[in-house]
Amino acid sequence: MNVIPAAVTTPAVLIDVDVLDRNIERMTSSMRGRGLGLRPHVKTHKTLEIARKQLAAGAVGITVATIGEAEVFAADGVKDIFIAYPLWVEAPHAERLRALAAASRVAVGVDSAESATAMGGQLGAEAGKIEVLIEVDSGHHRSGVLPDDVVEVARAAASAGLKVSGVFTFPGHSYRPGMPTGAAGNENESLGLAAAALTSAGFSVKTISGGSTPTALISGDSAATELRPGVYVFGDAQQLELERCGWEDIALTVAATVVSRHEARGGNVRRVVLDAGSKILGSDRPDWATGYGRLPEYPEARVTALSEHHATVVWPDSSELPPLGTRLRVIPNHVCLTMNLVDEVVVVRDGAVVEQWTVAARGRNN
Amino acid sequence: MNVIPAAVTTPAVLIDVDVLDRNIERMTSSMRGRGLGLRPHVKTHKTLEIARKQLAAGAVGITVATIGEAEVFAADGVKDIFIAYPLWVEAPHAERLRALAAASRVAVGVDSAESATAMGGQLGAEAGKIEVLIEVDSGHHRSGVLPDDVVEVARAAASAGLKVSGVFTFPGHSYRPGMPTGAAGNENESLGLAAAALTSAGFSVKTISGGSTPTALISGDSAATELRPGVYVFGDAQQLELERCGWEDIALTVAATVVSRHEARGGNVRRVVLDAGSKILGSDRPDWATGYGRLPEYPEARVTALSEHHATVVWPDSSELPPLGTRLRVIPNHVCLTMNLVDEVVVVRDGAVVEQWTVAARGRNN
Repeated sequence: MNVIPAAVTTPAVLIDVDVLDRNIERMTSSMRGRGLGLRPHVKTHKTLEIARKQLAAGAVGITVATIGEAEVFAADGVKDIFIAYPLWVEAPHAERLRALAAASRVAVGVDSAESATAMGGQLGAEAGKIEVLIEVDSGHHRSGVLPDDVVEVARAAASAGLKVSGVFTFPGHSYRPGMPTGAAGNENESLGLAAAALTSAGFSVKTISGGSTPTALISGDSAATELRPGVYVFGDAQQLELERCGWEDIALTVAATVVSRHEARGGNVRRVVLDAGSKILGSDRPDWATGYGRLPEYPEARVTALSEHHATVVWPDSSELPPLGTRLRVIPNHVCLTMNLVDEVVVVRDGAVVEQWTVAARGRNN
Repeated sequence: MNVIPAAVTTPAVLIDVDVLDRNIERMTSSMRGRGLGLRPHVKTHKTLEIARKQLAAGAVGITVATIGEAEVFAADGVKDIFIAYPLWVEAPHAERLRALAAASRVAVGVDSAESATAMGGQLGAEAGKIEVLIEVDSGHHRSGVLPDDVVEVARAAASAGLKVSGVFTFPGHSYRPGMPTGAAGNENESLGLAAAALTSAGFSVKTISGGSTPTALISGDSAATELRPGVYVFGDAQQLELERCGWEDIALTVAATVVSRHEARGGNVRRVVLDAGSKILGSDRPDWATGYGRLPEYPEARVTALSEHHATVVWPDSSELPPLGTRLRVIPNHVCLTMNLVDEVVVVRDGAVVEQWTVAARGRNN
């Protein structure tokens, strides 16, 4: 069990580097064993040290969500970057994409003929230096086109001078209990249909790219050539409750202190309040989650409410309320939000601080 | 109607400074008219320029949630700071509180005899330089003691050498439709009982401090000497849907671009996707909210889902889907989270950029 080092002032993000390394190794080996490339989504951690570990372990490149994130990692020497986002490119974006493409292989998502045409127009003579992957909607119903419409978008991209290199999808509907296996099936089918349609239309399909942490470790044949999970490096309370990781796989926790303590009285529930709120845990809470995070040392406790600087934890009857000043760890529901809320993280090994890492791409929203 | 200046790259936070100034003036005048002090909670904006405006308009001091926030504003010359939080004070906190108290009047929240004793012990000979306000639970059932228990906490604080100057509460249960008036009544009653109990026990009660934006403008006699609303400076979608502000009072919006566009097809709903997600809007969504934010130009549209960099907006049948590349504004559900997600905000007047402000206390979680 991990303790909170005495030097840490709460609230703070702790990363257990041994668990992190193990998570990176397991995903990399699994992908390698299936003949799939691993292109981790680094929006999860936004941290150079972790991307370096992923690439050293064998990742084929990285995935980012924004041009700003791409710039941070390219400046650290990453040579193969996919911006898995349907960018709407205007002149300032085109200028930044050109600069990126001068140093790295850059691929960008596109999900409409109009945006492909706009992107190609803005990039002008240098459009051919940017690869595009057509986004397919495999059931998440966010961005992406249906497999039937992939060819139309690809033709527009090619006409605009862009280099069409394949298709991608994010099966975000995997984030619900009972859904990962079905979502992986949808992902596989949609990618297969879309890739076949492109091939039939005469395109050379180099990349077929899927997500996600809930689906990536579901074995079996895949239509994909590469997968883009992100959260697997840390795990979080969502993945725990989806049974996509175990407690022992949690690499990131938020260190917190009991600042208020209440035995049941006056109509109130038995609870403690921790000094970690939505400004460090993030406030994602899907309707199926049991709370706003989990406590590794107290699996029966539930974070029932979150204010900006308070987590209200309803305490199980089976154990004593912890004394004021007790330091406890919280597993956030969604680690990607937590990492974006701090400038630095505390790296621990066997309960001791070994390093601090800067969250280099924090806040790079555009 | 506010437009998005052409120079802005989306997503970005826009502040309409005329609306901001009007919101500050209205709250200040209302408090003055009722003989109440206004001590705005600056965790909402974390921005020096806005705190200066609030103080220039007549605020009696500021409220913060963390020692780190207090340090940022004290360094800018703020001389009267209330840390409205039940701090658990260890040696490093005591050292920072001493440094703060050397330059400003500093008051701190406390909600247990144990934490008062710990705080006094850590502050040692300088405990008397820190004022404490006892936190009362007026119905939010987060931190705070019941009015009956205020005297016990106050006696422990006095024994520990701290200067007991009054009581405070945050009526957070006001954040629900139909609740503000009742919550304001609970707040008033609890503060009244707690202050009377302290007075009866021989304490001199200088400060009786209440919250919140949903309750602050509810007129009538108040037991309080000061109020601590925060969100009123900007308004947000929660306040709109609670009918605590109008559309014309919204000073903060997030500029976004339509990056994906989908007419109803293949079982999908008619929707657009904007490039502003939970990493700029924040993901607070109370169960009574109609979505994750509102669009001022399209009041019927609903933000039905939020990923980190995507807002899915279900579009009303009554209007055309906006073209790709359209720039739209989104009112976040909870502005305090939005301000904590950006390093800078774009200040606009009549649709033109007039300034950029740094969010000086962003991320100061401890």
